[in-house]
Amino acid sequence: MTPSQRTLEEIIAGIEPVDPVWIERARERTASLVMPARALGRLHDISEQLCGIQQSLQPSVSRKAFLVMAADHGIVDEGVSAYPQDVTGEMIKTFMAGGAGINVLAGQVNAEIHVVDMGIKSDPVLVGSDSGNRFLSRKVARGTTNFVRGPAMTGEQAEKAVLTGYQLAAELFEDGVEILGTGDMGIGNTTPSAAIGAVIAGAGLEAMVGRGTGIDDPALKRKREVIRLGIERNRPDAADALDVLAKVGGFEIGGIAGCILAGAYHRRPVIIDGFISTAGALIAAVLAPAAVDTMLAGHCSEEPGHRLMLRHLGLKPILDLGMRLGEGTGGALAMGIIEAAVRIFRDMLTFEQAGVTGKK
Amino acid sequence: MTPSQRTLEEIIAGIEPVDPVWIERARERTASLVMPARALGRLHDISEQLCGIQQSLQPSVSRKAFLVMAADHGIVDEGVSAYPQDVTGEMIKTFMAGGAGINVLAGQVNAEIHVVDMGIKSDPVLVGSDSGNRFLSRKVARGTTNFVRGPAMTGEQAEKAVLTGYQLAAELFEDGVEILGTGDMGIGNTTPSAAIGAVIAGAGLEAMVGRGTGIDDPALKRKREVIRLGIERNRPDAADALDVLAKVGGFEIGGIAGCILAGAYHRRPVIIDGFISTAGALIAAVLAPAAVDTMLAGHCSEEPGHRLMLRHLGLKPILDLGMRLGEGTGGALAMGIIEAAVRIFRDMLTFEQAGVTGKK
Repeated sequence: MTPSQRTLEEIIAGIEPVDPVWIERARERTASLVMPARALGRLHDISEQLCGIQQSLQPSVSRKAFLVMAADHGIVDEGVSAYPQDVTGEMIKTFMAGGAGINVLAGQVNAEIHVVDMGIKSDPVLVGSDSGNRFLSRKVARGTTNFVRGPAMTGEQAEKAVLTGYQLAAELFEDGVEILGTGDMGIGNTTPSAAIGAVIAGAGLEAMVGRGTGIDDPALKRKREVIRLGIERNRPDAADALDVLAKVGGFEIGGIAGCILAGAYHRRPVIIDGFISTAGALIAAVLAPAAVDTMLAGHCSEEPGHRLMLRHLGLKPILDLGMRLGEGTGGALAMGIIEAAVRIFRDMLTFEQAGVTGKK
Repeated sequence: MTPSQRTLEEIIAGIEPVDPVWIERARERTASLVMPARALGRLHDISEQLCGIQQSLQPSVSRKAFLVMAADHGIVDEGVSAYPQDVTGEMIKTFMAGGAGINVLAGQVNAEIHVVDMGIKSDPVLVGSDSGNRFLSRKVARGTTNFVRGPAMTGEQAEKAVLTGYQLAAELFEDGVEILGTGDMGIGNTTPSAAIGAVIAGAGLEAMVGRGTGIDDPALKRKREVIRLGIERNRPDAADALDVLAKVGGFEIGGIAGCILAGAYHRRPVIIDGFISTAGALIAAVLAPAAVDTMLAGHCSEEPGHRLMLRHLGLKPILDLGMRLGEGTGGALAMGIIEAAVRIFRDMLTFEQAGVTGKK
């Protein structure tokens, strides 16, 4: 069966928690390495999680990829962003030219970039580029509806967004990608993400809603009010992830949720980037709670609600560097740390191999 | 004048604070890059610090090196370590064979490793190895004296340790190394480091003294008592760094202090690793307070006193991953982040180059 033939029910049914036996075996290997017990801290937790996910004591992250999901948001009509909507498409051009933050950081760790139009209002104008990045047009629609006036999208569109993300990621995994990072682009997308965070993580809007790309105090007040109104009018059901996505979400957020489900289904680690990607992770975790086992939180964003989302998922971020760019940049930076964890696990000598005396 | 001809007074006199004009110029460049203002957080602070240190808007960290300073400690006679003293020399063999934590992590960022015997009790037995790492014998003495009974070393030895570290690092910088990481190896060396931290950072022994490689409760109690006795008997003068180093320090810690002074003198960034390296940084900062401007704190160690040392220096660690191995491993992992910061600064397009619309 090819990824495009699977239904969401089949995908969810195929997701199982990580088997603790693999973690236990991996911990034994860590204990044999030539250093005081677990002296590299989180690096050991990460490599052992990868052993659990990949069911192997030879975890591998050789082929790396990012799926950068882009879409537009009707909610920008309410003045919730500091940038005009055209920037979404303009940034796609920058990704394809190789000049954005994600290009620089993914380049450093030698990761591929696949940019997906999940629902940009216009059609990005791409001029010839030899940056080697791939562009895929998978528009669910030309931007969401302003969710103050009604649902952001239909239930069918929500499911299509998730399945599209699943299929794209599943194809990459079947093609040999061993670790995937999620990324986003979409002017206005901290607004649906905060709405999803408030509904699923059950946090208040004061704590969950931040300045996104850098709005001023009046716009921040308006952003909180708009989210409050959207939730009040649409009444999303926190236990029904597709309902939340349809009522206050976005197409790229649905796509990201699908990528995460693909990682869980195909037993491949997925690095969650920042605020928007973690909104996608919240959707994925409601659909399939065991999917959390395959998630790695790349970093903690400067966007204040991100910490609350991560806490709700029980994820501990790898980096905490005050970043808030999105695009997958936090995940790309963390990918270097994850690769280091794998190398330590695989390449360090044991006490025995090194001929070093053990603890007294 | 070659590095080996400079006196400590000349080195200290040649260290100046970073010129804020360079930081200001670098901030202007950051503001032009195609993203919301300073959206990559700490990465911008790091690249701008490098511009300030290197006095350039083209900061570069292409050639990277680690100086791993090793020595033995008389204080181990008091039972302050979980490992026997032979392990210091055995680990040198492992470094030269390419199988230790620092080899794996420095390898990932393509950094050279120079291992220095600053005062190991025995002579490390090195068998042929093609790992490409360099070993240098610069013994100040065969281990320090047990500082419970008197000073760990003489004043002359303390100065020699610092000058040796300076000379080795200065030669690397003059040879083209653009960024240096400090590393350490020395069974028992969290004990002198905690003593230095208590004296210079003025912290209590409960907070400053931790389990090092993993000692149990009775040994931890003994370690605190030994440090208390050593400080009481030797009365190190917190304002006189060489006096502190001589009375309760170690040869590798002096060497590390010298490396840091070399970075400050030659305007090259130095990544401080964990607890032992930061004890060296405390010595360097008392000798030349402006040296702090060229320091980057690679990570915050699991060793509890490390946070207090960093706070005293006003340094914010880049990583916080519960690591406590030393060798330079935290610095090596942070080197990838620092390189990412440099790449972002140099390689990202500006709004103008990308043709992306700015803030409303």
